[in-house]
Amino acid sequence: MAKYIYGVDLGGTTVKMGLFTVEGELLSKWEIPTRKEASGVNILPDIADSIRDNMKSHDITEADVEGIGIGVPGPVDNSGVIHGAANLGWGEFSVKETMERALNIRTVVGNDANVAALGEMWAGGAQGYSNVVMVTLGTGVGGGVIVDGKIVNGATGAGGEIGHLHVNDDEEDVCGCGNKGCLEQYSSATGCVRIAKKKLAELNQPSSLRDKDIAAKDIFDAMKLGDGIAIEVGKVYGEYLGRGLAMVSAVVNPEVFCIGGGVAKAGQIVIDYLKPSYDKYAFRGCRDVAFTLATLGNDAGIYGSAKLVIG
Amino acid sequence: MAKYIYGVDLGGTTVKMGLFTVEGELLSKWEIPTRKEASGVNILPDIADSIRDNMKSHDITEADVEGIGIGVPGPVDNSGVIHGAANLGWGEFSVKETMERALNIRTVVGNDANVAALGEMWAGGAQGYSNVVMVTLGTGVGGGVIVDGKIVNGATGAGGEIGHLHVNDDEEDVCGCGNKGCLEQYSSATGCVRIAKKKLAELNQPSSLRDKDIAAKDIFDAMKLGDGIAIEVGKVYGEYLGRGLAMVSAVVNPEVFCIGGGVAKAGQIVIDYLKPSYDKYAFRGCRDVAFTLATLGNDAGIYGSAKLVIG
Repeated sequence: MAKYIYGVDLGGTTVKMGLFTVEGELLSKWEIPTRKEASGVNILPDIADSIRDNMKSHDITEADVEGIGIGVPGPVDNSGVIHGAANLGWGEFSVKETMERALNIRTVVGNDANVAALGEMWAGGAQGYSNVVMVTLGTGVGGGVIVDGKIVNGATGAGGEIGHLHVNDDEEDVCGCGNKGCLEQYSSATGCVRIAKKKLAELNQPSSLRDKDIAAKDIFDAMKLGDGIAIEVGKVYGEYLGRGLAMVSAVVNPEVFCIGGGVAKAGQIVIDYLKPSYDKYAFRGCRDVAFTLATLGNDAGIYGSAKLVIG
Repeated sequence: MAKYIYGVDLGGTTVKMGLFTVEGELLSKWEIPTRKEASGVNILPDIADSIRDNMKSHDITEADVEGIGIGVPGPVDNSGVIHGAANLGWGEFSVKETMERALNIRTVVGNDANVAALGEMWAGGAQGYSNVVMVTLGTGVGGGVIVDGKIVNGATGAGGEIGHLHVNDDEEDVCGCGNKGCLEQYSSATGCVRIAKKKLAELNQPSSLRDKDIAAKDIFDAMKLGDGIAIEVGKVYGEYLGRGLAMVSAVVNPEVFCIGGGVAKAGQIVIDYLKPSYDKYAFRGCRDVAFTLATLGNDAGIYGSAKLVIG
C-alpha cells in the first residue's frame, strides 16, 4: 500500500479536500470553490489541478498515492457513475473514469451523506462500530447506512434516504419530494422552524421565539432554558425522529445511530428528545442500540472519502 | 471446492434437509421431526445423525462435503451463535460449534427468514438480483434483507424484522411484540383474518366470508370473485404493506421485493393490492423497484442454507 490518500468532499459551494496518511491521519486540508457554471464542467478538472498542485508542493508522486476518494451530492452506483446531481448541474456520467483519466490515480466515488457516515465510523462519533446509521439533521434529513463496514448505496443510490420515511398520515403540507408526512418535515432544521412557527401561531403563551427570525439553533437554545413553545417543538421533532429511527432499526438493526448535521450541534438534547419515542416504537430486539453525536463536523466528508479508498 | 452441500431448514415441527451439488442442483430432500422436548437438546444430534446416514447411503465422505448450512428460527449473529429460539426451547449457544463438533464438517448458520431470502435470490423468484428484500406473509410478516448478495443480520439478529414496522397510529389492538400498529397486524395471514372479522362486523353487506371459519386463502379467493368485504380487506392489507415496503426502500433501496409465504400463494393479486400504496409513499428515487412472487415455496430454506455455505 502506498503512503497517502486524498479525500474530497464535493459540495454545492465549496470543495473540501484533505491529504491523509493511509493510517487515517489528516496531514492538511484546504478548500476550493465549486464552479457550477457551464453545467459544472470545470468542477472535476479544478479538483484534479488542486490535487496535482498539492502533490507537487509535498513532493508526492503518483506511486505514493493509494487513491482518491470523492463524496458527491447525488446518487452514485457501485461503479462510480453519478445519476445526476441537480445541485451541480450534472447529468449522468462516470466520476471515477473522469478523475482517473485526469490524474492516473485510482478513484473511488460515493454519495456525500453515505461518505460522511463512513467518516464518522472511521474516525468520529461511530468509531469502533461496523453497523452504523448516520443521521444528518441539516436543511433536510439525510442518512447513511453502513452494514458490516460497507456503505449501503442501494439499487439506484437511494440507500439511506431516511428523510423521506413516511411518519405522519395527517400532514397537509407537501415535502420537497412531493409526498406528505416525510420525516424531514419535522426533524430537519427547516422542519423544526416550520413546527415552531405553527406552535407560535396556535399557542397563546409567551416565548423567546416570538417576533423574530428563528433558526433551529434558537429553538434548541430556548428548549434548554425551558421555553414552553420550544419544548413543544422538541416533542414533535423527537416523536417523529424516534419513530423514523425505530423503522430503520427494523430493517437493518444497527449497533449505533450517530447523529450529526447542524441541528446536532445542540448536543445531547437532540438525543434526549428522540429516545422515548424510539423506545416506544422500536421492535424489542432492536432496543439496545447506542445513540452518539457526530464529532467530525464539516470534516466527516473528507475522512469518509479517504476511507472509501482503503475499503 | 468439494462436490456436495447439505442445506438444513430447522422449523418448529419438522427439519427439512436437502443434498445439493455445489452448483445448486437439489439431488434429494427429506424431513425429520423436530424433537422439542427437553429444551430441544436432541434437535442438532438428530440432524447430525440424519446427515451421517445420508452420507453413508450415498458413499459421501467428509472431504466430499463443502459444508452444511442451517437456517434456524431465531436471531443469529455472524459467528453462528443463536440468541434464543423460544419455539425450540433453546437459549443462547453456538449452533455452528455444536454441529462442527458432531460432524467435523464446516457449518454456516443463519436466521430462517434471511436464509429463505437467500434461497429465492439463488434459485427462486429473485434470481438475477443481488439487492433483494424478501417479504414472507405467513402467520406473521417476516423479512430478509440482502445487500450486494449478503444477508443483513443486524447487530442483534433483528435485521429484516419488517413485520414490526409501525404503520398505523390509530390501532387499539396489541401486536404479539407488545407494540400497536405493526405491519403484521394487517398484512399477515392472521392480520387479514383479523381485518376481515372487523369488516364483517362493521359493514352490513352480503359476503361469502360470513358465518364460517375463514382463512387468508378464503379472503383472497373471495377478492378475486369481487366480494365487497374481501376487497375492503385487500385494501387494508395493501395500504399498510405498500407503506411498509416504501419505508424499507428508503433505508436499503432494493432492486426487487420478492413476496412469499402462505398469503402469497394467492398470486399476483397480493402485489396488485399493495402497489398503489407503495407508489404513493415511496421516495421517488426508489419507485422503479420490481415486485416478484417467491417460487421455491417450502424449499426456499434448504436452498438458502445451502447457499450460505458457498457465500
